[in-house]
Amino acid sequence: MATLPEPLTRLIAGLSRLPGVGPRSAERIALHIVQAELGSVQQLVEAIVAARDSVRPCQVCGALTEKQPCAICSDDRRDGSLVCVVERPVDIISIEKSNTYRGKYHVLGGKISPLNGVGPEDLRIVSLEQRITSENINEVVIALPSDVEGDATSYYLAKVFKPRGIKISRIAQGISVGTGLEFADELTLSRAMEARREII
Amino acid sequence: MATLPEPLTRLIAGLSRLPGVGPRSAERIALHIVQAELGSVQQLVEAIVAARDSVRPCQVCGALTEKQPCAICSDDRRDGSLVCVVERPVDIISIEKSNTYRGKYHVLGGKISPLNGVGPEDLRIVSLEQRITSENINEVVIALPSDVEGDATSYYLAKVFKPRGIKISRIAQGISVGTGLEFADELTLSRAMEARREII
Repeated sequence: MATLPEPLTRLIAGLSRLPGVGPRSAERIALHIVQAELGSVQQLVEAIVAARDSVRPCQVCGALTEKQPCAICSDDRRDGSLVCVVERPVDIISIEKSNTYRGKYHVLGGKISPLNGVGPEDLRIVSLEQRITSENINEVVIALPSDVEGDATSYYLAKVFKPRGIKISRIAQGISVGTGLEFADELTLSRAMEARREII
Repeated sequence: MATLPEPLTRLIAGLSRLPGVGPRSAERIALHIVQAELGSVQQLVEAIVAARDSVRPCQVCGALTEKQPCAICSDDRRDGSLVCVVERPVDIISIEKSNTYRGKYHVLGGKISPLNGVGPEDLRIVSLEQRITSENINEVVIALPSDVEGDATSYYLAKVFKPRGIKISRIAQGISVGTGLEFADELTLSRAMEARREII
């Protein structure tokens, strides 16, 4: 029985180790690569190498950056008394796009998840603690996902940092702006109801 | 507003040009790459370069191969009087896995599709014609997909090659083995009905 050439099989195996790429899409991408123009493949390879070589987590906040510390950490115009805790580096971009936050950030690198064997010691909590000690932080804004693990991690952080006398807040949960109630699940609706505010 | 580092943005752009990779998955893959172990990234890059450098279409049949002609074309034990026409190089692997075909192959490289601007001249039909002239082929087995474009292309090939006095067949359309009728669409069922055969 004929099979695919070995370098192609190896490429498919390598691609299917990437997140979100199954064996079928790996095969499709690999076939595209071997048949694509040489220039475009070289460009992709250079982009991979350049990104891997130059992009590093910021030693202060954990955001992805080319220089140390990152642009946000070294920006004096940002409010250093506020630190927003996010799960992943991309979450910073989402919040920045909303244009409503002018403080600093701290990337946790995950959520506490006993089922997946992730405990507090696997997250960047010690470095957050050090920042709270050394920087002039008086509020920690938790912007973790509102799933079970996000809730557990938020609660853990609140328990740890509350005794230090700083404010611990969490971004609001509720219905999305511009959508009807029919698109909100029950849990979201119940949280939105609990967090209702007087409008006048 | 802070944004992602430029090498990362460039990598995301490059990845999202791959087939089946949207902006979200490109972002996910890029973040994985910059945070993955250096060794695994190097492995991936080497696999891309090796596959692109060593894998080429077979000059005879169009299958992907490391040597010219490919293993199937140069295998004398295979029946050279039969040539199976497929759309893409991977289709050969699917047919080989079924272990029921011992002839040669010819990759068409696409289907006739006026809407997408693909005409017969864009496909490997001239080289198929040359093979029919020079090789001792007496049956062309068409194994194109059974969609509208596959049907049109099959009909076109039959019209072109029938006058040459060779047999033109097409693999059967019908219900999948092992599934109930409820999983077959109406068109498949009607084709299966038309192609019914006496069982005794």
